[in-house]
Amino acid sequence: MARGSAGESVLHKHLRILESFDAWHPFLTLTEIADATGLAPSSAHRLIAELEREGLLERQPDRTYRLGVRLWEFASRTPGAVGLREIARPWLGAVHERVRQHVQLGVRAGRDVLFIERMSAQDAVLNATLIGGRIPLFASSSGLVLAAYGDPSVVEDVILGGLRAYTDRTIVDPDELRREVRRVRADGYAVSAGHIHAESTGIAVPVTGPDGSVYAALGVVVPNDGASPQSLIDLLRRAAVGVSHDLAQAYLPDEGDGSRGIRSLVGSSRRSIEYLERLAHDPHDPPAPPRVS
Amino acid sequence: MARGSAGESVLHKHLRILESFDAWHPFLTLTEIADATGLAPSSAHRLIAELEREGLLERQPDRTYRLGVRLWEFASRTPGAVGLREIARPWLGAVHERVRQHVQLGVRAGRDVLFIERMSAQDAVLNATLIGGRIPLFASSSGLVLAAYGDPSVVEDVILGGLRAYTDRTIVDPDELRREVRRVRADGYAVSAGHIHAESTGIAVPVTGPDGSVYAALGVVVPNDGASPQSLIDLLRRAAVGVSHDLAQAYLPDEGDGSRGIRSLVGSSRRSIEYLERLAHDPHDPPAPPRVS
Repeated sequence: MARGSAGESVLHKHLRILESFDAWHPFLTLTEIADATGLAPSSAHRLIAELEREGLLERQPDRTYRLGVRLWEFASRTPGAVGLREIARPWLGAVHERVRQHVQLGVRAGRDVLFIERMSAQDAVLNATLIGGRIPLFASSSGLVLAAYGDPSVVEDVILGGLRAYTDRTIVDPDELRREVRRVRADGYAVSAGHIHAESTGIAVPVTGPDGSVYAALGVVVPNDGASPQSLIDLLRRAAVGVSHDLAQAYLPDEGDGSRGIRSLVGSSRRSIEYLERLAHDPHDPPAPPRVS
Repeated sequence: MARGSAGESVLHKHLRILESFDAWHPFLTLTEIADATGLAPSSAHRLIAELEREGLLERQPDRTYRLGVRLWEFASRTPGAVGLREIARPWLGAVHERVRQHVQLGVRAGRDVLFIERMSAQDAVLNATLIGGRIPLFASSSGLVLAAYGDPSVVEDVILGGLRAYTDRTIVDPDELRREVRRVRADGYAVSAGHIHAESTGIAVPVTGPDGSVYAALGVVVPNDGASPQSLIDLLRRAAVGVSHDLAQAYLPDEGDGSRGIRSLVGSSRRSIEYLERLAHDPHDPPAPPRVS
């Protein structure tokens, strides 16, 4: 949607403001937000005030703004990000112990892969994204996996969006991309040697959810040194099977009231979960006082 | 703001829809969302379509909706939640190794404490919230700490919101709350024995940020067995000093271009951070291809 076009939704404008913050610009003044979004200062002021009232932005003592913890609160209930991430973390840890480079978990977000977890060694090879960062599907091994196991329209949509070179190894030819995606689906893994940066190779495999569809890509980024990827592929596959197994255990059966709890997504003690489940099915706010005698 | 009132902002309606999802109801149909929010189905349908278009909601193959990963993406750039949490995690781990119950980190969100991280043993005592869950400030030890070190108006606002009993130990008298908050500020810790549930005691201390203000409360939830809290208070204080120290290291100095990077908030290798910093200061999308020879 064009910037400032008459057809732009209010929601889209609110999100453009939130998008102006990133890891390198976590604190912005009103003027900086107006500049970054291209919104008129008066319009930016009104939208920022709304976002602040709802806790999506927080104003700091120095009058700069930052993204608000309410965003994190919503995110903490996101099955496809936080839920998946908590389940996958021990398996990423197991891979990381063996491969002291980067191990990461990515999900598809439009034409990009969005990395929702990563473990990295301090002296690991160059990796072009942060946790919470995106890379176009066509450029990354995790992205190729997500494109290969997604709807066929995904690959065509990626091609429509344009293939641009990071290095002379990046796949920029549409037919080559279609072939590579078919190969990834046939072989069950992707290897991208030097596709984003000459010094790094990405290797990724799919993580399957309980419904048989691919939820995420599990990958490593290692030095681009010509070594055979086979032992890493095997290691990633074993970890992906572990994540899939734990995902299948994560969802509680519907107890007849339409709820499908995600017990294993939440870290707490058995005693606490019992208490919270009772509350979820018989809500009081706060719970009726269980009087101590 | 009243439900469905003519004065309700569109943003507020959007957020009401997002609020209808929680850990026990991660997947909702259109009808369930309309029921939970009290919105007319036609209105709910339009708002949901907008949220889906922006990636804040995701429609699943079975036609239910879930919160979208884009929410998590915004959250990943939240200094007050993800940033703080990543920095504090090793210190929570150190406390957890000594106290195999619950250790948790909370920030203030209005009249509540919002828990942004927790480590729990499977057989730990009852704890009334999840990660991402809230408890009213007056009821929880972490909440009392955040009220004690916040603006004096916070306590009065909490009293205005009403004090309700979880147990017969919950502080429900406004004057007692004012006294307790003064005591917490004088002593530097809060102990809430049986305030939320008869079997549990909360103990919390403040975590101070680089600007001298209190960013968070660090606490444990342990059995309410009459044991002296002093050794736990000492342990929490040492950990809180550690978090404060690491917080002070986390923010890079302004490099003259208005950016204040948060290098230690992001987990990657040195080589990757250098690359990303260069990109942040000289953005290309994607970066100009550094051709390999």
